[in-house]
Amino acid sequence: MSEAEARGTHRLHEQLEAITALLARLVEDPTPAHHAELQQRLDELHPADIAFVLEALPLDERLAVWQRVKADRDGEILLEVSDAVRESLIADMDPREILAAVEPLDADELADLVEDLPTEVLPELMASLDAQQRERVQSALSWEDDQVGALMDFEMVTIREDVSLETVLRYLRRFDELPAQTDKLFVINQDNLLTGVLPLHWLLVNPPETMVSAVMAPDVNTFHPGDDVYEVAQAFERYDLVTAPVVDDAGRLIGRITVDAMVDVIREESESEALSRVGLREEEDIFASVWASLRNRWSWLAINLVTAFIASRVIGLFEGAIEKLVALATLMPIVAGIGGNSGNQTITMIVRALALNQITPDSAKRLWRKELAVSLFNGLVWGGVIGVVAWLLYENVALGVVMTAAMTLNLLLAAFCGVGIPMLMMKAGRDPALGSSVLITAMTDSGGFFIFLGLATLFLM
Amino acid sequence: MSEAEARGTHRLHEQLEAITALLARLVEDPTPAHHAELQQRLDELHPADIAFVLEALPLDERLAVWQRVKADRDGEILLEVSDAVRESLIADMDPREILAAVEPLDADELADLVEDLPTEVLPELMASLDAQQRERVQSALSWEDDQVGALMDFEMVTIREDVSLETVLRYLRRFDELPAQTDKLFVINQDNLLTGVLPLHWLLVNPPETMVSAVMAPDVNTFHPGDDVYEVAQAFERYDLVTAPVVDDAGRLIGRITVDAMVDVIREESESEALSRVGLREEEDIFASVWASLRNRWSWLAINLVTAFIASRVIGLFEGAIEKLVALATLMPIVAGIGGNSGNQTITMIVRALALNQITPDSAKRLWRKELAVSLFNGLVWGGVIGVVAWLLYENVALGVVMTAAMTLNLLLAAFCGVGIPMLMMKAGRDPALGSSVLITAMTDSGGFFIFLGLATLFLM
Repeated sequence: MSEAEARGTHRLHEQLEAITALLARLVEDPTPAHHAELQQRLDELHPADIAFVLEALPLDERLAVWQRVKADRDGEILLEVSDAVRESLIADMDPREILAAVEPLDADELADLVEDLPTEVLPELMASLDAQQRERVQSALSWEDDQVGALMDFEMVTIREDVSLETVLRYLRRFDELPAQTDKLFVINQDNLLTGVLPLHWLLVNPPETMVSAVMAPDVNTFHPGDDVYEVAQAFERYDLVTAPVVDDAGRLIGRITVDAMVDVIREESESEALSRVGLREEEDIFASVWASLRNRWSWLAINLVTAFIASRVIGLFEGAIEKLVALATLMPIVAGIGGNSGNQTITMIVRALALNQITPDSAKRLWRKELAVSLFNGLVWGGVIGVVAWLLYENVALGVVMTAAMTLNLLLAAFCGVGIPMLMMKAGRDPALGSSVLITAMTDSGGFFIFLGLATLFLM
Repeated sequence: MSEAEARGTHRLHEQLEAITALLARLVEDPTPAHHAELQQRLDELHPADIAFVLEALPLDERLAVWQRVKADRDGEILLEVSDAVRESLIADMDPREILAAVEPLDADELADLVEDLPTEVLPELMASLDAQQRERVQSALSWEDDQVGALMDFEMVTIREDVSLETVLRYLRRFDELPAQTDKLFVINQDNLLTGVLPLHWLLVNPPETMVSAVMAPDVNTFHPGDDVYEVAQAFERYDLVTAPVVDDAGRLIGRITVDAMVDVIREESESEALSRVGLREEEDIFASVWASLRNRWSWLAINLVTAFIASRVIGLFEGAIEKLVALATLMPIVAGIGGNSGNQTITMIVRALALNQITPDSAKRLWRKELAVSLFNGLVWGGVIGVVAWLLYENVALGVVMTAAMTLNLLLAAFCGVGIPMLMMKAGRDPALGSSVLITAMTDSGGFFIFLGLATLFLM
């Protein structure tokens, strides 16, 4: 984090520290004045900022703040916090509070929360909705989390194409407010088919007597509820969209998707990638209990234990050689470590290019050639340096040569696997990012030990 | 990548494959009809899509496409490609082409490109700008890349507060088009001080005779050119902004910042974090030359070589013990590996919490306690399992006990450093993400070898 960044996030962090201090003072001295001061500070915060504060507080202080949040903002705040923190907040609410909190929410927001709510409140919740709301919630729930159908909202302003802009302007004045983020109106015909869009800009710069049909645009960025949200987020990014219509297979307008939802998708995608690389199953509440943390992390540790054990057995094959020349044991982690580092560089780059769909069968061959060339060069240069050091340390020229050769071969293995593993994963229909780091490290560890100790057995024994 | 995602990015990938096929056919059979087909396909693509295709093509084919792109779209495409690919495209253009390409760009876009242009074209380029444009380019250049001043644009629609909405509507009709992403108008007084904002929505739903002053809002999300863009991007995310005004220290309106620029910031931030973790200096052109790749990667490899060498010397201290009990050499990578994996999980979580500014001095202590508890548990359970395996493999109970103890201690070290290293980096004003992975691995490797071999020397020799 740069100095400027530290200065930048200052304001929110100051709020957090002030609230922590107020909470501590309340414990010591619970006077009404102190209560009122905390209450006022919380009331002034934006729901997203309260969510930030809740995320950053340990469980007991988090609940102390949560109980002071005005009930009519509960729903909005629950939407903003991470899944792990949401769980801890909902566990603290009784069914009546939960129903009151979610009551003001829209169908798509409700669908977001439903899976985190205790099952006993669901019948009452669904009964409290009107038919249209209930249908929308059920529709949103019928799609996967990473499909457009789960993220679209239903707050659209629709118009007909055979009216004048003047009529549209008069129609809009009958609204109390327009749906958030509205940058275009959707033009539909009597069958609810989307025939085009009218950006607000065009409504504003064109003469009022112009007909909608004369200035509306056929919208090229129309999505379907089954579309993948990562793909849609990339389209928002590429074409600088603010909102886009969602249509069913027949072309009927059924919802819209907004840039704020896409910003969240982009953020979550990159975070979950960073976490999954090191084997954290999901966004972890930093103040989660020890048990919750263990559950979140154990599977990856177990996999790592297996790969480390395999690498250890590879060394076990060569115990005779190590007994004769103990320097082998000392030098072998260098061979494995450099291979792992270089392989991780290659695999990170390839995973990114695959995620962007930039690799064709033709270019894959070129990539392989290039990565192997880079590794050959690195192996000869850095392997040469380490070889000379090993020679001087142990006064053994042959050992130095074996070291250089092993490093070069292990770097070539790292390049080969660094390009190959994600491509194979992709072919097998798996996410090439998940586990990429542990797989490549397993290859370069076991491979590095085998190459180095094998060469040593052949040429030094 | 999920199946849905693979289906989603399909369309753009199909374009890429079709263009690759057309290029291959042109090499074999350069008839005018084939030329025309390629040309037509390129002309139909959005500049952002051409940028995607250019990124995904090897250098020679990339330049073949680049030469066919209509000159008036060159500038837009140069803005969309990554730095590395931009370099390769500009190297292929002569000064006249470069000047023609950048001529239609806005000041902030020009400032983005300037540092990548050959210095010999700069005098002519600056001379071709009018005084206002030149001043804006120079202003944008005077800020760091991660400051708002470098990313803001100057396309604002400003109004006065003492006019009616009717007047504003009439004023807007004099525009041919509004600046992209405009969702609010900026209200300024005669001194150019920002007094509020008028969202387009309010302009549309309120009666035309209403005065601007009656419906405008004081804008709470106003930024300064020196603000950090990551912080501003977080504000856009939290408060669902589309545009926001930028004011100088006196409160005068000097520019605006838009959500599409912030989406790019969020994307680039997460990508550069993923790359810097494994020591890639910057976004690498996947078809970069071998030399360019070596330059991009060597520094991290060198650091890794040094830390691997230190770990190797730690083992060197215990060569006597290994000679007596070769099983030590076989088992030691397990101790180091598990520590590295667990430490990387902890450090990833802490770096993220620090980046979000969620950690206070008070909560730091709790985090430490929690992470140490998780490690103690993992060490006793997993270390116990491996200890039993070691005992059975080598028929040596004491070796099994040493193994369990060493794994537990190394996991505790991993937890301690996983929380401590990023906090120290932060205190020292450094970016806690950069090098975090290599630092923690260096600690758990050297530490793990030292603990395991040290305990073995004390209790088994």
